[in-house]
Amino acid sequence: MFSEFDLVRRHFTRPATHTDLAVGDDAALFRVAPDMQLAVTTDTLVAGTHFFYDTSPHGLGWKTLAVNLSDLAAMGAAPRWATLALTLPAADEGWISAFAEGFFDCAGRYGVELVGGDTTRGPLAMTVALFGEVPAGQAITRAGGQPGDDLWISGCPGLAALGLMCLQNRVRLIDADLALAALHRPVPRVEMGEALRGIAHAMIDVSDGLAGDLAHLCECSGLGALLDTRMLPLAPLIAAGADDALACRTVLAGGDDYELLFSASPAARDTLATLARKLGLPLARIGQLTAETGAILLADGSGGSPRPLDVCGYDHFASLPR
Amino acid sequence: MFSEFDLVRRHFTRPATHTDLAVGDDAALFRVAPDMQLAVTTDTLVAGTHFFYDTSPHGLGWKTLAVNLSDLAAMGAAPRWATLALTLPAADEGWISAFAEGFFDCAGRYGVELVGGDTTRGPLAMTVALFGEVPAGQAITRAGGQPGDDLWISGCPGLAALGLMCLQNRVRLIDADLALAALHRPVPRVEMGEALRGIAHAMIDVSDGLAGDLAHLCECSGLGALLDTRMLPLAPLIAAGADDALACRTVLAGGDDYELLFSASPAARDTLATLARKLGLPLARIGQLTAETGAILLADGSGGSPRPLDVCGYDHFASLPR
Repeated sequence: MFSEFDLVRRHFTRPATHTDLAVGDDAALFRVAPDMQLAVTTDTLVAGTHFFYDTSPHGLGWKTLAVNLSDLAAMGAAPRWATLALTLPAADEGWISAFAEGFFDCAGRYGVELVGGDTTRGPLAMTVALFGEVPAGQAITRAGGQPGDDLWISGCPGLAALGLMCLQNRVRLIDADLALAALHRPVPRVEMGEALRGIAHAMIDVSDGLAGDLAHLCECSGLGALLDTRMLPLAPLIAAGADDALACRTVLAGGDDYELLFSASPAARDTLATLARKLGLPLARIGQLTAETGAILLADGSGGSPRPLDVCGYDHFASLPR
Repeated sequence: MFSEFDLVRRHFTRPATHTDLAVGDDAALFRVAPDMQLAVTTDTLVAGTHFFYDTSPHGLGWKTLAVNLSDLAAMGAAPRWATLALTLPAADEGWISAFAEGFFDCAGRYGVELVGGDTTRGPLAMTVALFGEVPAGQAITRAGGQPGDDLWISGCPGLAALGLMCLQNRVRLIDADLALAALHRPVPRVEMGEALRGIAHAMIDVSDGLAGDLAHLCECSGLGALLDTRMLPLAPLIAAGADDALACRTVLAGGDDYELLFSASPAARDTLATLARKLGLPLARIGQLTAETGAILLADGSGGSPRPLDVCGYDHFASLPR
């Protein structure tokens, strides 16, 4: 059995290039460029709440960082540094080694340096704090939406929720692998987030379900929204094996998606289509922001009145996954 | 029952003065002055490992931040911003309210703004990431020790360990209140840490026991140390009710102290005496750094050869407190 200090040193020390002093002292030291704001976020994953105890440590290492990267992407910030606080029930070196590999796979992919951390004993959980840079004044908040803005969503919201239902034997899929990959190894939309600076008016990352996170964006912008079910990106879910109703439900209320939901002027449609092609990431235009504060409505294309959208975001204290 | 979002908003949102965008978006935004390095640290407290389940939430809120402040103090950095990741078994508003009050008591005392966080459901634990500023190039690391430097320790190392033993009915104290206050509401040495810039050559915060943390400082500086038992600050422990042997043991191996251990030139003795008086914080000169790499020795004043110091720092995986 290795001591806490050995474990940290052995698996979590990597060479640093843009950090003045990384892991190993009381605090890390780095510099932020003078024309930049620092963007800071933190997210915790807890065994039994956010993942099953038998989840692969490699995937978990990746996801621990990825969920935080998604938050920075939603500000249009470039990720740079992270700390990792790891609570472990035992000093299982195989587990720790695989977790560290997954973590550094993700960190390397997005240019993040691990600058510090803490290892404690207790029920399995991990908290990352992630720091990025964004040119001063150019961050994309939730508050900048304008009435008449188009609403856009990236990628495949709902796919991770399908993956979870599949694990729980609540649905049988034609293509479970894709849904399980979305659940276990989400791809944070870092490049898209940065590219949307100067284009998106308001942005949020969809981690608690599209409907719930749309409500947050509308509240912060002081607006309402009108979605159109016919414009929701249901095709990937239906291709994976969901029926229409399930696809619609998981797109709107899924959770664990880590897609970007943003608003932009209708004049930006061509620019966004070009950007989507360039980055290989589909963007779906799903509705628009309205001046009717707090009214979040869903039209179904039948010609009838739009109905209020059931905002059922994922809330750890209101609805546990099991 | 309140939802996760309500809880966060209700108790953890305070006005910000030196933060551009605080709690409530995907990430916080703030600026670091151009001539400053950012100093970053993170520490987790886990129920059952670092504190008893019935610990007062107010004290726990204070301590959660204080243990991180101690790390920044040990770099000579000025604390400025924090994030808080809180994992709770239930949405108990009374507990959360008291915890938040303790947290903000400490934050207000040291000029820290809470800029973001995450609330999750699971076994009780809290992780703070704390960010401070230090003039570029002036941080005090563990690595700057010089042979012949005096070794100094602040305050009353060992007192918190006595408090823990008292709670566990392993010792009866004359003055338990002082020891329990040291355990439950440690006072981070923030002002002293900053004042030591330009004076201390190497510094570390003593959270894992003086002997163990001295070993870290020596290892990073590539040196050894010679302590003198007669110079250890035993008086406060003896006044609290410990006998000589217990006082010596807890000073050297206590843990949970959050005092500053640092080295400085013998030429700085007068300056340090003045500083100690000015800040009302005793500094004890307990020995010196030696050129004998890795040799950490303890003399007892008997005139015999110094003996190797038993380095028994607190390690979560090697020795649980219960």
